[in-house]
Amino acid sequence: MGSQSDWPTMKRAAELLDELGISYEARIVSAHRTPDRLWSYGKDAAGRGLKAIIAGAGGAAHLPGMMASKTRIPVIGVPIQTRALSGVDSLYSIVQMPRGYPVATMAIGEAGAANAALMAAGILGITDPALAERLDSWRAALSASIPEEPQDD
Amino acid sequence: MGSQSDWPTMKRAAELLDELGISYEARIVSAHRTPDRLWSYGKDAAGRGLKAIIAGAGGAAHLPGMMASKTRIPVIGVPIQTRALSGVDSLYSIVQMPRGYPVATMAIGEAGAANAALMAAGILGITDPALAERLDSWRAALSASIPEEPQDD
Amino acid sequence: MGSQSDWPTMKRAAELLDELGISYEARIVSAHRTPDRLWSYGKDAAGRGLKAIIAGAGGAAHLPGMMASKTRIPVIGVPIQTRALSGVDSLYSIVQMPRGYPVATMAIGEAGAANAALMAAGILGITDPALAERLDSWRAALSASIPEEPQDD
Amino acid sequence: MGSQSDWPTMKRAAELLDELGISYEARIVSAHRTPDRLWSYGKDAAGRGLKAIIAGAGGAAHLPGMMASKTRIPVIGVPIQTRALSGVDSLYSIVQMPRGYPVATMAIGEAGAANAALMAAGILGITDPALAERLDSWRAALSASIPEEPQDD
Amino acid sequence: MGSQSDWPTMKRAAELLDELGISYEARIVSAHRTPDRLWSYGKDAAGRGLKAIIAGAGGAAHLPGMMASKTRIPVIGVPIQTRALSGVDSLYSIVQMPRGYPVATMAIGEAGAANAALMAAGILGITDPALAERLDSWRAALSASIPEEPQDD
Amino acid sequence: MGSQSDWPTMKRAAELLDELGISYEARIVSAHRTPDRLWSYGKDAAGRGLKAIIAGAGGAAHLPGMMASKTRIPVIGVPIQTRALSGVDSLYSIVQMPRGYPVATMAIGEAGAANAALMAAGILGITDPALAERLDSWRAALSASIPEEPQDD
Amino acid sequence: MGSQSDWPTMKRAAELLDELGISYEARIVSAHRTPDRLWSYGKDAAGRGLKAIIAGAGGAAHLPGMMASKTRIPVIGVPIQTRALSGVDSLYSIVQMPRGYPVATMAIGEAGAANAALMAAGILGITDPALAERLDSWRAALSASIPEEPQDD
Amino acid sequence: MGSQSDWPTMKRAAELLDELGISYEARIVSAHRTPDRLWSYGKDAAGRGLKAIIAGAGGAAHLPGMMASKTRIPVIGVPIQTRALSGVDSLYSIVQMPRGYPVATMAIGEAGAANAALMAAGILGITDPALAERLDSWRAALSASIPEEPQDD
Repeated sequence: MGSQSDWPTMKRAAELLDELGISYEARIVSAHRTPDRLWSYGKDAAGRGLKAIIAGAGGAAHLPGMMASKTRIPVIGVPIQTRALSGVDSLYSIVQMPRGYPVATMAIGEAGAANAALMAAGILGITDPALAERLDSWRAALSASIPEEPQDD
Repeated sequence: MGSQSDWPTMKRAAELLDELGISYEARIVSAHRTPDRLWSYGKDAAGRGLKAIIAGAGGAAHLPGMMASKTRIPVIGVPIQTRALSGVDSLYSIVQMPRGYPVATMAIGEAGAANAALMAAGILGITDPALAERLDSWRAALSASIPEEPQDD
Repeated sequence: MGSQSDWPTMKRAAELLDELGISYEARIVSAHRTPDRLWSYGKDAAGRGLKAIIAGAGGAAHLPGMMASKTRIPVIGVPIQTRALSGVDSLYSIVQMPRGYPVATMAIGEAGAANAALMAAGILGITDPALAERLDSWRAALSASIPEEPQDD
Repeated sequence: MGSQSDWPTMKRAAELLDELGISYEARIVSAHRTPDRLWSYGKDAAGRGLKAIIAGAGGAAHLPGMMASKTRIPVIGVPIQTRALSGVDSLYSIVQMPRGYPVATMAIGEAGAANAALMAAGILGITDPALAERLDSWRAALSASIPEEPQDD
Repeated sequence: MGSQSDWPTMKRAAELLDELGISYEARIVSAHRTPDRLWSYGKDAAGRGLKAIIAGAGGAAHLPGMMASKTRIPVIGVPIQTRALSGVDSLYSIVQMPRGYPVATMAIGEAGAANAALMAAGILGITDPALAERLDSWRAALSASIPEEPQDD
Repeated sequence: MGSQSDWPTMKRAAELLDELGISYEARIVSAHRTPDRLWSYGKDAAGRGLKAIIAGAGGAAHLPGMMASKTRIPVIGVPIQTRALSGVDSLYSIVQMPRGYPVATMAIGEAGAANAALMAAGILGITDPALAERLDSWRAALSASIPEEPQDD
Repeated sequence: MGSQSDWPTMKRAAELLDELGISYEARIVSAHRTPDRLWSYGKDAAGRGLKAIIAGAGGAAHLPGMMASKTRIPVIGVPIQTRALSGVDSLYSIVQMPRGYPVATMAIGEAGAANAALMAAGILGITDPALAERLDSWRAALSASIPEEPQDD
Repeated sequence: MGSQSDWPTMKRAAELLDELGISYEARIVSAHRTPDRLWSYGKDAAGRGLKAIIAGAGGAAHLPGMMASKTRIPVIGVPIQTRALSGVDSLYSIVQMPRGYPVATMAIGEAGAANAALMAAGILGITDPALAERLDSWRAALSASIPEEPQDD
């Protein structure tokens, strides 16, 4: 993620990765404040055996797109909600990538962070049947948790 | 894709899949006009051995999200540009998925369609070294094609 | 409605249906989490004798449109207000339906939920003179409740 | 509709009403230029036996909402696409009605006009089995017309 | 104004009219809930000797425009801030009037309400030199109240 | 107006002023390119006996608001449609004036320009019965020109 | 800045100018309430030896652009966040300047105010090596302050 | 600039730099396609004696902000108009930079490109009196070119 202040949002991704038994590292890599960290992170990602990168950022939100320019590994972008523009700035900056450098963009905010983990699980599950099964179970449990009728408080 | 009218945009994805040597099927599956086709397509996708689904749709654009609800396979969504709202309607409807059902959303229009193919390549390249190499070459060629200085016509 | 969290909004519809003496069932049918429930609900609606369906959903908000694709019965859509995009996402996703599958879209939030009930009453009142009269009375009472001059607190 | 210039859009509704065998009258009733015509049209609608009113308008687009304030009969609103704001102005003005006076809002432009006719058919079909059957056939034909694969020109 | 709930905003207009010594009446005239009240208010305005009408409304906000269609007297519109769309709906619905029926639209919210009173003063001041002088003084006092340097709390 | 390029739009105001028999001067006064011309125009307006100022501008569109800060005479603002932002920039910049300096904002583009002339007529008509009558006739003629039914081409 | 109410935002600029050892004056200059103050401030700026002007304003936000029309000295604009439109109005009004009169526009709100100071430092640092070095140090310290991993509270 | 396709817009900057006698180099540096070129360009800028960088980009538009993260030299950003989102995406991505890394953002499109050159002239003119004089002359000529009255074609 681009900043410590993104962590309350991005923690939703970490929690779900834990729940699905996917190992990961959580790093702060700021596109603007630590561009060289971004550079080497992106350049080394494939060689280190990373399989997907979840990148959350807000405002100008250059982290996901720049990461995608430095590695062929799938980058999943999470637009952080912002104060003035509610994350529309983050969304446009992450999703409107030019031909050549896709970012798999998720919804704005916490739902998007959780979904980034699920997207990673879906990607890795293509060739990891055990994970695919855990993902299927997670989805089935979510479906089963929906009551038929609304409850008053 | 949701409609024949999406084909001029989605053809950009097909062309790039061809170029990268990724086999695929191109189908029209309308969320609203052929919901049962969507249902069976989604339900059978994993069993048939599909590894990723690229879904382009415009306006209410329910196809990518409904597909994501029917299969754990990664769904890559392409918002088609629309007449009145320029594809902002398609974008919001595809990207703002609730927790549980991610759609890997691309840019609006043709760049997004091309990028959907590249995202698929990145996903499959995780476990297909030959494809990863073809993707690396494609990216290197794109980079190499950029001149240092602008050209007048 | 698509989720328990929509109930505080959608309760406004239920209250007004009660007030107007229209019988109804309140169900949670999530387009993404319980797609099969949506499928059978939509497919059986006409046969069960339902006359209108009020569907509230937020964000990607696919429920109203997917319901409209599964039944010819009038679907009335209520865009739930959302955190980042204030319900503009819900509104666009519900109202921008393609040719063939209309959703009668109401205002964002509680006013829209209440109006969904009134729209249902207007629809049923076409052939139910007693209900039409109750609706006329309700409207007359609302008009009569408006004071001529503003009151300071 | 509010103006002669809305007719190219609203003709889509008329054509579909013809196709579905629903009788109707096409009238220009401008909220601002002919307010008294709007007044008497709305006031007499129920008494004349009208069962639904399709109202298309652009820009400030007050026609649908004002009609809804004058009659309990269901009003179906069509936001006409506009030059500067692409119909977002029409949409907001039609859909954001206050509690008490719903307008069943359709998509911006021609798809919305066609859908207004289909919504009317769905409403009338509740108590007109022959019309319901014609609507079912129309929908089935639309579904059947969708090819499995996209066609190059 | 269209509703009692608009009064906290519109009171800013009333206060300034008081301050400038302009006599006025404050009335609730709802375009949708009391359309006949709107009708007669607009029709009688010129005959009763009213010189300008300040109309505040939110959401679909049809009051200012409908008033402008019923009287040649200048109508000054105030878009009330709304919950979901922040008053953008009110603004578009009030300002985007078709050729023939202008509404002098002010800023969204309290600043707009205050300015409606000042606009009325400017209009009446054209032929009322004493009022013009009071307006000049009010403006001069506002200018004089601005300190040269910002103050910390 | 702020620029020669605004004239095709603002000509609609001039034409209508001619039609209504209101004398006027048409001037280019650029807020940014000729600020001193704006300054003296605004400062001298009241003394020269001007009764209202119609100011059209696009983009940053500072002309109407700055004029309103230099004179108490009513300023009527016309947002010119722009290339990238369609006049939303012009609209926000003209209408969102702070407390103290109202601009009577019209619709974006040609309809707004025409309405600026009609607003001026409404303002002057308060104390000019002959003009009020001409305005009433103009409005009556517009109403009478609306056919009952739409015409195919 | 245009108003005392902008100070909590603009103080971020003042603090950073202090930190970087850049001398400045903080003035309230309202485009609308004190236009003559703006006039003389702009006209005298170059002669007084000012090297850059930071101008923050909200809503119609004419201050930065009008200042740019009165002086050739670089004007840095800060869009203040607003209540109804979140500063989108301020942003459009400041950034959409016509050819001839640029305003160096910063982000909406406090980040933009801080960045205005940094932009001024970058400008002055071109010919002030000591300041350039202080700016480099400030940037290096910011980079160094970013931890590698996120911290839970 | 980020792409050859930006040149028709950015040429407006080059032309004006020529006109003002400011030497420059025109380079294509794509943030995503040639990230390493961006890296070294940014890192070497100060050492090579560059005094300002004009960076134009469209869509995700990461070039200006990434350049600002690699050099303390003032970066002037030009949002290129885009097909689907008209340059709002470019604008948000360029202007909404986080604290620490300002980009002096200009208007969308050609006016912004021209203004980038004028902003550079204003910056360099602080310590280059001859350039300051040329800029003053250019501005005076622009002002003098505005006719008093609009011309019909």
